[in-house]
Amino acid sequence: MTSTFKKLQSISEKLNSNRLFELFVVFIIIFSALVVGVKTYNISEELLKAVIVLDWVITIIFLIEITIRFIAEPKKSQFFKKGWNVFDTLIVVVSLIPIDNSDMALLGRLIRIFRVLRMVSIIPELRILVNSLLKALPQLGYVMLLMFIIFYIYAAIGSTFFSQINPTLWGDITISMLTLFRVMTFEDWTDVMYETMAVYKMSWIFFLSFIFFTAFAFLNMVIGIVVSVLEDERAKEKKIEEQDSDAINLETLHQQLKEIQIQLKGRN
Amino acid sequence: MTSTFKKLQSISEKLNSNRLFELFVVFIIIFSALVVGVKTYNISEELLKAVIVLDWVITIIFLIEITIRFIAEPKKSQFFKKGWNVFDTLIVVVSLIPIDNSDMALLGRLIRIFRVLRMVSIIPELRILVNSLLKALPQLGYVMLLMFIIFYIYAAIGSTFFSQINPTLWGDITISMLTLFRVMTFEDWTDVMYETMAVYKMSWIFFLSFIFFTAFAFLNMVIGIVVSVLEDERAKEKKIEEQDSDAINLETLHQQLKEIQIQLKGRN
Amino acid sequence: MTSTFKKLQSISEKLNSNRLFELFVVFIIIFSALVVGVKTYNISEELLKAVIVLDWVITIIFLIEITIRFIAEPKKSQFFKKGWNVFDTLIVVVSLIPIDNSDMALLGRLIRIFRVLRMVSIIPELRILVNSLLKALPQLGYVMLLMFIIFYIYAAIGSTFFSQINPTLWGDITISMLTLFRVMTFEDWTDVMYETMAVYKMSWIFFLSFIFFTAFAFLNMVIGIVVSVLEDERAKEKKIEEQDSDAINLETLHQQLKEIQIQLKGRN
Amino acid sequence: MTSTFKKLQSISEKLNSNRLFELFVVFIIIFSALVVGVKTYNISEELLKAVIVLDWVITIIFLIEITIRFIAEPKKSQFFKKGWNVFDTLIVVVSLIPIDNSDMALLGRLIRIFRVLRMVSIIPELRILVNSLLKALPQLGYVMLLMFIIFYIYAAIGSTFFSQINPTLWGDITISMLTLFRVMTFEDWTDVMYETMAVYKMSWIFFLSFIFFTAFAFLNMVIGIVVSVLEDERAKEKKIEEQDSDAINLETLHQQLKEIQIQLKGRN
Repeated sequence: MTSTFKKLQSISEKLNSNRLFELFVVFIIIFSALVVGVKTYNISEELLKAVIVLDWVITIIFLIEITIRFIAEPKKSQFFKKGWNVFDTLIVVVSLIPIDNSDMALLGRLIRIFRVLRMVSIIPELRILVNSLLKALPQLGYVMLLMFIIFYIYAAIGSTFFSQINPTLWGDITISMLTLFRVMTFEDWTDVMYETMAVYKMSWIFFLSFIFFTAFAFLNMVIGIVVSVLEDERAKEKKIEEQDSDAINLETLHQQLKEIQIQLKGRN
Repeated sequence: MTSTFKKLQSISEKLNSNRLFELFVVFIIIFSALVVGVKTYNISEELLKAVIVLDWVITIIFLIEITIRFIAEPKKSQFFKKGWNVFDTLIVVVSLIPIDNSDMALLGRLIRIFRVLRMVSIIPELRILVNSLLKALPQLGYVMLLMFIIFYIYAAIGSTFFSQINPTLWGDITISMLTLFRVMTFEDWTDVMYETMAVYKMSWIFFLSFIFFTAFAFLNMVIGIVVSVLEDERAKEKKIEEQDSDAINLETLHQQLKEIQIQLKGRN
Repeated sequence: MTSTFKKLQSISEKLNSNRLFELFVVFIIIFSALVVGVKTYNISEELLKAVIVLDWVITIIFLIEITIRFIAEPKKSQFFKKGWNVFDTLIVVVSLIPIDNSDMALLGRLIRIFRVLRMVSIIPELRILVNSLLKALPQLGYVMLLMFIIFYIYAAIGSTFFSQINPTLWGDITISMLTLFRVMTFEDWTDVMYETMAVYKMSWIFFLSFIFFTAFAFLNMVIGIVVSVLEDERAKEKKIEEQDSDAINLETLHQQLKEIQIQLKGRN
Repeated sequence: MTSTFKKLQSISEKLNSNRLFELFVVFIIIFSALVVGVKTYNISEELLKAVIVLDWVITIIFLIEITIRFIAEPKKSQFFKKGWNVFDTLIVVVSLIPIDNSDMALLGRLIRIFRVLRMVSIIPELRILVNSLLKALPQLGYVMLLMFIIFYIYAAIGSTFFSQINPTLWGDITISMLTLFRVMTFEDWTDVMYETMAVYKMSWIFFLSFIFFTAFAFLNMVIGIVVSVLEDERAKEKKIEEQDSDAINLETLHQQLKEIQIQLKGRN
């Protein structure tokens, strides 16, 4: 490691932990979000050109910022082990790829939109929030699987019986699942039901039982999260309580009493 | 019990507790689900023939699997006492019935769809989930009954007053209950209300009070489940706590102190 | 009190506490509910006549049942202090009034429908459920009042600005409140909004803030109930715990130690 | 301070704490609410004139009431530190401004509507409720921000891809956000989706993922409030418990036992 690099690293470290630098990056992210918003309006040719220039300026600032954060990191190998760093780097690297054909241009625009997500990676409170959401996901895995099985079975039945009635809603199992999701959100579900009831009079059983099962499974899922969150809170609380009571507990008193008994016995 | 049968049983037991065998069965169930899905698309004659052959292959594999599990069970009488075993056997047996006329063909297709439910019976986590859902059902019984009574009374009033206005919605008490369920899901409920308000100006009281009562009863139901689930969790927790504190409790200390007092008295 | 009346009372008491008698009354209530349901269908003249006869039979059975319960009650003055007894008597008495003109006939039909509610008064579990729902109502009083104030203010604003745009939705403050209730249930609320946005471009603020406020108030209400229900449960639990720990507590041990200290001092 | 002012202050104080005076103010507020309601109906010229006179009478009564409350306050500087006093004064002062042109007339009408909110400031229970709602708001701040980011990204993607399909729904980023809010409330969301699916077949992923993310974030928010409310309750409870157990705890017993041990040692 040369001395010039060492100097660079110490500067980077100072910058990285600087409050003003952080605020500047947040400002640039908000600014890049506004630029993304402006592009959706019908804007004049000149403004569009200015926006393209601004896009490149933002990309370069982001590139410099990520370089500074990388240099500031004492252990380089740890840098890419943090998911948010990988995400930030990816966003910047893809922005740098020169775009020629129209398909890639679309991807380029999407990447510029996803820059707004950098807000989450820069604000610690949001990062904690998203991390806790992601942590809750695997817990829900099996309920999701159960719900998928319910959807699959009902979609198979639906497309078997109703595909002749309305092919756009019940044509095959994929479309049927989309239709069932619509029924679950109660969006014009009676229109779907009345249509099938005209042919199969008892098909309301199909819809009502589906609503019942999915609502019930969903309820169970929600309660599951609430209970597990409350459990976590209680577990934390208990740990604190136990630490507090570490000083004096019943075991201590029990030992003291034993000693007294021995003392008394010794004197008899 | 002949020695050949004994040998067969020991092989079955080994197979049944084999992880690979379980994975193979899960794979076959997923495969059978895909076959069910494929049939809902417009497929060529040849593919349809292949699917029918696959159906039979799956049925035979399932038959073999259930036979293995039955042989592996040490006490044969216990096998059919487990609900999931009965379910699995039923699915396989009905699949074996040769189908001729079209009515039975429909039933056959349904049974093949319900094979997907075997996923629940094979994955322990899903089995626990479904069991806990089923356990919650009787708790909800009385709230359901109360809700049915509310529905019945409102449907009776509705079909008495509104059957002349719109017979397709309020023709008789069954249709009225379906219409009220629609109102409860807020699906185009204002269309239903505005129609009756044109004749009976005050009929909004009917709809608003119904929404209020059902929403309130539903809320109560949800809270009821949450509370009972939390109670269960707390009861479990308490049991563990009590087991932990079995070693030393206040009663022990009380006994020790009594002994000391006796010792002191004895010396006076 | 004559001896014949005493005999009658003892018979009534026996009947009233008889399980079979209770089941018979439940059966009659279910039967009366079915009769109410049958009347909503298009039925032949003869069946209608039979239904009218059945109606009178049910009324008489109910009259006898309530008389038995009244005689069985040891303290007559206590009988009408129970809300459910008053309700049952009212239903029977109004059913007895002979009906001539059509307005009263409608009331008579309504009363026959409300007989179904007797199911709640006869089944103890349902009675407990309804009582607990009624007990929760006053707790919600102030949240309801707050919500009414929000509705009133938004309805006043709505009918001031939008009455020219669509008088059927925003004509006066009463209609506006109904329209806002519709918006709260998300029923075609965008149609209502798009219509006003055509004149007042910023009127989406009106709708979005209204949805935000009512959703937030509603949420608060629900959480309020959950918390108060959980509090009650915990309070009950604590009471039980305290009773359990009455035998030995820290105070007892403290007294014992004091006694030991006195004993030790007395010997010095 | 002159003696006449002192007399005035003591009268004001008596009035302010008088139950009848409070009831009179509540009555005037309800009356002013009714006047606001009446104005939304088509009323005769004379009634309208009467209403205008009543408006001024109410304004003057409110002015007198706020003056009494101001005089009754011992420390004048504290008066405007209470948010509700500032709110009440503002409402009265703006009502006093004479209105000439039509724009100001509209503002004047709005102010008269907001008088209904004085109900919240006068009834202590409602004041507590609103204060607790306001206290919960900052807690939700970061979830709101996260939700806004989700909305912004999806709106940017939506207006990039779908603006050609339906400019009234996806024209620019602001309109797109409104459309997405509509999708979140499930209001005719399938119509919006089917329209885009006609061009981009896979656009259901856009809608379903959006519904999933917002529903999940919303759920997290609700659970967050429930948990924090329950935490507060538990913290309060614990404080009370600790105060109760201040008399005797394990530490006291430990000290007593130490003393006994010293006593015993001293005698050996």
